Amino acid sequence: MRTVYVNGDYLPENEAKVSVFDRGFLFADAVYEVTTVVGGQLVSFDRHLTRLRRSLNELDMPSPADDSEILALHLELIARNNIDQGLVYLQVSRGEADRNFLYPSADTPATLVAFTQQQEALNYAKLEEGIKIISAEDKRWGRRDIKTVQLLYPSMVKMQAKAQGASDAWLVQDGYVTEGTSNNAFIVTADGTIVTRPLSNDILHGTTRAALKLCAESMQMKFEERPFTLSEAKNAREAFISSASCFALPVTSIDGESIGDGKRGPVTARLQEAYIQANVQVADNKL
Amino acid sequence: MRTVYVNGDYLPENEAKVSVFDRGFLFADAVYEVTTVVGGQLVSFDRHLTRLRRSLNELDMPSPADDSEILALHLELIARNNIDQGLVYLQVSRGEADRNFLYPSADTPATLVAFTQQQEALNYAKLEEGIKIISAEDKRWGRRDIKTVQLLYPSMVKMQAKAQGASDAWLVQDGYVTEGTSNNAFIVTADGTIVTRPLSNDILHGTTRAALKLCAESMQMKFEERPFTLSEAKNAREAFISSASCFALPVTSIDGESIGDGKRGPVTARLQEAYIQANVQVADNKL
Repeated sequence: MRTVYVNGDYLPENEAKVSVFDRGFLFADAVYEVTTVVGGQLVSFDRHLTRLRRSLNELDMPSPADDSEILALHLELIARNNIDQGLVYLQVSRGEADRNFLYPSADTPATLVAFTQQQEALNYAKLEEGIKIISAEDKRWGRRDIKTVQLLYPSMVKMQAKAQGASDAWLVQDGYVTEGTSNNAFIVTADGTIVTRPLSNDILHGTTRAALKLCAESMQMKFEERPFTLSEAKNAREAFISSASCFALPVTSIDGESIGDGKRGPVTARLQEAYIQANVQVADNKL
Repeated sequence: MRTVYVNGDYLPENEAKVSVFDRGFLFADAVYEVTTVVGGQLVSFDRHLTRLRRSLNELDMPSPADDSEILALHLELIARNNIDQGLVYLQVSRGEADRNFLYPSADTPATLVAFTQQQEALNYAKLEEGIKIISAEDKRWGRRDIKTVQLLYPSMVKMQAKAQGASDAWLVQDGYVTEGTSNNAFIVTADGTIVTRPLSNDILHGTTRAALKLCAESMQMKFEERPFTLSEAKNAREAFISSASCFALPVTSIDGESIGDGKRGPVTARLQEAYIQANVQVADNKL
């Protein structure tokens, strides 16, 4: 049985509970981060911490702990649950208060929950095989840059994808792809340029997106930040998604239409290798 | 201390908890209803049950209990907590499962939570005084007809309203008012027509909105369902909001601009009286 962290306590997973009055449960007033673990080491933990701080700040949500405490509980969970490959999920909510749309007083303690999942994090076969996706209208709220638990729509769309024999979906707003349901979206144009939507309130500011941009720049690959349409994506030479858990993962078809030759392309493969070298292999459980 | 209902148990509120793996907590994969209690009687409970069933159906969420069981737990909470005036809050989530965007198997038991709040439900002074509101961009997701707990944006906007000395906000999309943060929006035009936005995915299908429409029709008042702009609202003769807990409540100013003479208007007053007669005074705790 897993050990789960809840507000300072390490508990058996069946005892890991929060109040029904927690604002994460009643108002989705909570933010989260998921850090990948490879070889027992946290990948790009500093980027996740930085984004967590940004999410808390955008929502005027109190900090539940300082950076070293948050790192320490991650390491403790990795150790107690014997995680070699997998992830640590962290969630902060605005805490417990009688139900009221207005925030409780600023001294209300935040709720801090974390747990692990064991899973194959570095899966070379999957990194080569890629995934098929569908497209769906982007009906999420307007502040997707804040990593909140308002994940019902992504969940609904992943169910639609599954029903159509696909693994995920790219979300489309006004004809342009915003991002995947839980990942950023990239295409490679005929001249080899990597294209992804610029940062704004419309998309999550992906930690892996940022790392891939650095990789591309360091290898002097062409990298352009601009919106692209679903039609451009379907006619692209390559397509891929990025997230903390999937790194850079080829998209081999969209809505049943093959991308390029329907196999991982050379630009995606180069980025995968560079990403793993620069981020996964150097992971060291330090701040 | 309140008694709270959690999955069949009646518990002291400080023991009322759900798993950190509940999908209501991790994915905002939950819907809710709030029923007003006056004189110990549930107001329009049948309408709330009907909407709850619709929300569950739209999300392919399993039913947590049949109608008579849901009524019974409401009555038990009212009795145990000695509620004369107040509300019963009910929340259903898709239950507990290891974190995955995909829904758990359909036989996963839903989580059913309910609690009471004691508050003045029938407050004639407030019904006359009304509220000041602000306007804000509507940044919520695209399925506001499903009453989910994705309430962070309404919460953020109520905080903005409070900071500006107002009680609430009307949300505006493409220049047109959608609704309030937790209520439907109405105006009364110069010729006495009551105007409110038609039902669609853009707004909650308010139980009180439906009841007010019936009241207006039964009194042969002019009632028109069409979108209206923020500017039309600011120049309206009267404005009001409706919700299960506020009934019909005058809006006396928007963004600091008085509506009409800045006092409750006669159309709003007539609707309040008719609503209370037709719904509150007949409340009888039956299905």
